[in-house]
Amino acid sequence: MKVAIMGYGNLGKGIECAVLQNADMELVGVFTRRDPATVKTLTGVAVYSVDELIAKKDEIDVLIMCGGSATDLPKQTAEYAKYFNVIDSFDTHARIPEHFANVDAAAKEGGKVAMISVGWDPGMFSLNRLYANCILPEGKDYTFWGKGVSQGHSDAIRRIPGVKNAKQYTIPVDAALEAVRSGSNPELTTREKHTRECFVVAEEGADLAAIETAIKTMPNYFSDYDTTVHFISEEELLRDHAGIPHGGMVFRTGKTGLNKENTHIIEYKLTLDSNPEFTASVIVAYARAAFRMNAEGMKGCKTVFDVAPAYLSTMSPEEMRAHLL
Amino acid sequence: MKVAIMGYGNLGKGIECAVLQNADMELVGVFTRRDPATVKTLTGVAVYSVDELIAKKDEIDVLIMCGGSATDLPKQTAEYAKYFNVIDSFDTHARIPEHFANVDAAAKEGGKVAMISVGWDPGMFSLNRLYANCILPEGKDYTFWGKGVSQGHSDAIRRIPGVKNAKQYTIPVDAALEAVRSGSNPELTTREKHTRECFVVAEEGADLAAIETAIKTMPNYFSDYDTTVHFISEEELLRDHAGIPHGGMVFRTGKTGLNKENTHIIEYKLTLDSNPEFTASVIVAYARAAFRMNAEGMKGCKTVFDVAPAYLSTMSPEEMRAHLL
Repeated sequence: MKVAIMGYGNLGKGIECAVLQNADMELVGVFTRRDPATVKTLTGVAVYSVDELIAKKDEIDVLIMCGGSATDLPKQTAEYAKYFNVIDSFDTHARIPEHFANVDAAAKEGGKVAMISVGWDPGMFSLNRLYANCILPEGKDYTFWGKGVSQGHSDAIRRIPGVKNAKQYTIPVDAALEAVRSGSNPELTTREKHTRECFVVAEEGADLAAIETAIKTMPNYFSDYDTTVHFISEEELLRDHAGIPHGGMVFRTGKTGLNKENTHIIEYKLTLDSNPEFTASVIVAYARAAFRMNAEGMKGCKTVFDVAPAYLSTMSPEEMRAHLL
Repeated sequence: MKVAIMGYGNLGKGIECAVLQNADMELVGVFTRRDPATVKTLTGVAVYSVDELIAKKDEIDVLIMCGGSATDLPKQTAEYAKYFNVIDSFDTHARIPEHFANVDAAAKEGGKVAMISVGWDPGMFSLNRLYANCILPEGKDYTFWGKGVSQGHSDAIRRIPGVKNAKQYTIPVDAALEAVRSGSNPELTTREKHTRECFVVAEEGADLAAIETAIKTMPNYFSDYDTTVHFISEEELLRDHAGIPHGGMVFRTGKTGLNKENTHIIEYKLTLDSNPEFTASVIVAYARAAFRMNAEGMKGCKTVFDVAPAYLSTMSPEEMRAHLL
């Protein structure tokens, strides 16, 4: 199957690498709003202007949308779902219903499958929440994120006057994890679940105490958390904090038995060296599903909840049953 | 939807309890090969002879097969798939292809959906192997079981002369788990992955040293493992080892990136107080899916790989997207 990438940031690069690991896929090209001459791909795959995209619609089986959730995807996914099977990683949870409705209408008009909100959260974490809720109807859900880099929190620090650069890690609290894993169904506050650790490069002569206070008291982002701030040099930041690791855990703890006497704990845990590359790997598997489901006549907007797992695999049903069941 | 139980052992009792936790389900009755007058259900639900089962086919939406994999299910699931949507927990991995073929033919003949091998392994563990393999095509799988009671190993000990009763626990080795969680992709032998711990009640005057040797040298069951044997009294066995806990972990560790420079670890972990009640909880969720899929016109044999997750939930698609995605 032939895939194309729309937008070439970290996620687009991740898709480019992931396609190489899937022998049934071929990358047609990268499409960008920038001047294609200025974009150099990792593998040398061709770069085209977005203006050429629709003209190439018969050469592309699935178009992978790699823009941001804030402004790119709400417009682009619906726009291109009229012409292509598309897939995105839209992750603004509160706006998913609206995004679904727009994309669904476009995909139905075009007779295409459009898969939204694919990745790990939303994505694999959502799936695990769904499965675990269906298995244990009486129980409690917990989601933890990290240890990992939060782009949004890092950006928020960078906007503070006197800050040259910064990286923020979200870290689950060990005591909270232990309490959940014990099956005791704890009630946990925001502060009890995660801490935040910040590595900050200050401008020369900046007031470090003022920066630290500005971070720790920032509403929504930091004020509800125990936050640690480390001032380091630009060299240290680039040397020790260049990666974009992430991950986290989804738990459901629940009871069964005539008198609810038995406790069960379901845990799904991801430990990821590269957040965008793992997200890309999930997306590529679901791109396969989108293409196959459309080939079977399905159309409209879909999420991970709508995809039978077999559609994701290159194995035949017989191989799957023999080797994985 | 109306469900019925075929066979009333630990799994059947688990189904009886699980149905109570699912408001959209009603238990029509338990069907047994024994004299119904001798079977007392936990909730007082009616017990019928298996001879009455087919006559009640219009009153039952899904028949849940609760017999054993060795002799019951290979016959019964195919037999009843002609008349009912059925679901079983067939777990003899090597015979799944043959079981699938038999059940598929019967279910297609009857226009029914027959779901096989549902539970946690096969079942949720299989699903996690499939998802993780699709996401990380280049990687390594690990499955660990326990800490939990192995019925087969406990039975094997009970067959040794001089043994009155016994319970065997399968225990994953901490060092092996640590090595897998480190992402180092270790090669692990059978002995390195699990240990076996046995609690044995000996007949009076039995040769304990001979029993211990017989256990530790038993081929297939124990000889490839580090095994510990404890002799305890019948009272201690009943007091301290009455439960049937189980669980385990499925891992996939894999690489991404242009030069495979990034490692990712996916872990799915179950900690279960009651193996049969958890298995029953999974089965009940998939019984809902079987009924719905058949109502949409599907027929034939299905496994967890063929079921879109949304079929398992009582939530509407809108609720699912709003609350779980």
